[in-house]
Amino acid sequence: MGKTLIFGHKNPDTDSITSSIVMANLETKLGNNVEACRLGVINKETEYVLNYFGVQAPTLVESIEDGRNVILVDHGNPLESVDNLDKLNILKVVDHHPVKITVAYPLYYRAEPVGCTQTILYKMYKEYNVEVDKKIAGLMLSAIISDTLLLKSPTTTEEDKKAVEELSKISGLDPQVYGLEMLKAGTDLSSFTIDEILHLDAKKIDFKEVKSMVAQVNTASIPDVMKMQKELETGMKEIIEKENLDLFMLLITDIINSNSQVIAMGKDAGLVEKAYKVKLENNTALLEGVVSRKKQVVPIMTENA
Amino acid sequence: MGKTLIFGHKNPDTDSITSSIVMANLETKLGNNVEACRLGVINKETEYVLNYFGVQAPTLVESIEDGRNVILVDHGNPLESVDNLDKLNILKVVDHHPVKITVAYPLYYRAEPVGCTQTILYKMYKEYNVEVDKKIAGLMLSAIISDTLLLKSPTTTEEDKKAVEELSKISGLDPQVYGLEMLKAGTDLSSFTIDEILHLDAKKIDFKEVKSMVAQVNTASIPDVMKMQKELETGMKEIIEKENLDLFMLLITDIINSNSQVIAMGKDAGLVEKAYKVKLENNTALLEGVVSRKKQVVPIMTENA
Repeated sequence: MGKTLIFGHKNPDTDSITSSIVMANLETKLGNNVEACRLGVINKETEYVLNYFGVQAPTLVESIEDGRNVILVDHGNPLESVDNLDKLNILKVVDHHPVKITVAYPLYYRAEPVGCTQTILYKMYKEYNVEVDKKIAGLMLSAIISDTLLLKSPTTTEEDKKAVEELSKISGLDPQVYGLEMLKAGTDLSSFTIDEILHLDAKKIDFKEVKSMVAQVNTASIPDVMKMQKELETGMKEIIEKENLDLFMLLITDIINSNSQVIAMGKDAGLVEKAYKVKLENNTALLEGVVSRKKQVVPIMTENA
Repeated sequence: MGKTLIFGHKNPDTDSITSSIVMANLETKLGNNVEACRLGVINKETEYVLNYFGVQAPTLVESIEDGRNVILVDHGNPLESVDNLDKLNILKVVDHHPVKITVAYPLYYRAEPVGCTQTILYKMYKEYNVEVDKKIAGLMLSAIISDTLLLKSPTTTEEDKKAVEELSKISGLDPQVYGLEMLKAGTDLSSFTIDEILHLDAKKIDFKEVKSMVAQVNTASIPDVMKMQKELETGMKEIIEKENLDLFMLLITDIINSNSQVIAMGKDAGLVEKAYKVKLENNTALLEGVVSRKKQVVPIMTENA
């Protein structure tokens, strides 16, 4: 049968990568034969985290043979997973997103409406009485800071805050100091092509009938990123044509002030104006207080579509 | 908003009824405003349990207004729930069946591949550090015994066994003595019409293209139930016509010896012969060792359909 493969979603972020490492640690301590994997390249923020703690990146997998045992972390949605997911034997899912999969056999499926998968994993360590070491605590802390933008995103729950407090103690890290450095490391776009920037954290989402792509980049300075507006728009147009999209939203999110500048392209760009009561000028507008795709984009855009 | 309503599946069994009571107890202790409900009549076994512990039956609900907050226990499948489930706000699901629902918003979804919902609820009491009192322990114990047929069903896991051991201590009950009395109480069919017997624990299941109903009755004596074979067959035929089914399987399960006598009707009755390598004589056959619809009927019938 081989090892059970553990992986997060495609286009992995810090939560997906560290969750596969942390879940592999937990499963190993519970006596199970597992391997931490990933479905894509490591982003800059995650690279900073792995380097900081001296932890190896999970194994890159491009395909998995049918029938293999797998554990999904930080996703349950088949659209964000390996292509042959329906042919794999899913043992467990640990996630903080909506439930978007049906499975014909009983499995361990644990989703909770918290800001980060690691908040759930941290509870699982407690439940199984497994010790969280300093390094694991640091990885967990990093992911929660990343997903909640230092506990400022509206996705943040009391459980996330409690986990950050406890994990700071175990890891000996000040979340404000370490967290801001980590988030800033993730905003360095200098080595990326325009197409890469647009795919760094992009999700295909249908707002009812409106076939859309919503990409997000974090920054400490919106004007810095907006210098590339023309090039970004050209890239977005290409993706719209290639993928036959009705709308492409790029959120440029200010991690210090918790706002997002949106660039909206495509025939249904007007939906952004309707949903947020803003006027797009030169394809762009500031969305005050918007930082969370899950809480502040998907429901509002769907409702207005 | 009103209280959050907690309920198990339609055609409720002992797990569905006691899980709604137990989950309501846990939620109340966690400070939430909830009410235990049920979607159907109490069966004889559950009646025995509620009388034994002097516990009131959950409130019967026939419909729920759109938008209401609900918690589902012992099911997640919309086919087994209230009709307007997609219009309700599901806060939590605690279940031990396959995941058969997609939900657009993040929620607490906890399914584990164990024999009974109460085995998961018992873990949750521990996780939240909430004390399990004697009565609650007795209800939990009853449901695990019911779902696993005294830990003999192949759905039984080590976690179920551990829970029964601990809950016996808390409740002061010997599972072998109390459990057998409880199971026997559930086998008393004397007050039911044929149609009621066929609906006591019936699930509509499609084995690929084969539209089926699988009903199960427990008994301490298969010959006693088989005395009604002709009447049962007439009732099954009526349901097949009314529901336009391809197959109706009635499992008459011997809770002492862990076998089931099957009566199979409908144009695809031959599927039972193929799946279990038996010959139906006079529409019936003994399925040795078969007691679990979930583990020993659904996968085998689906594979052979």
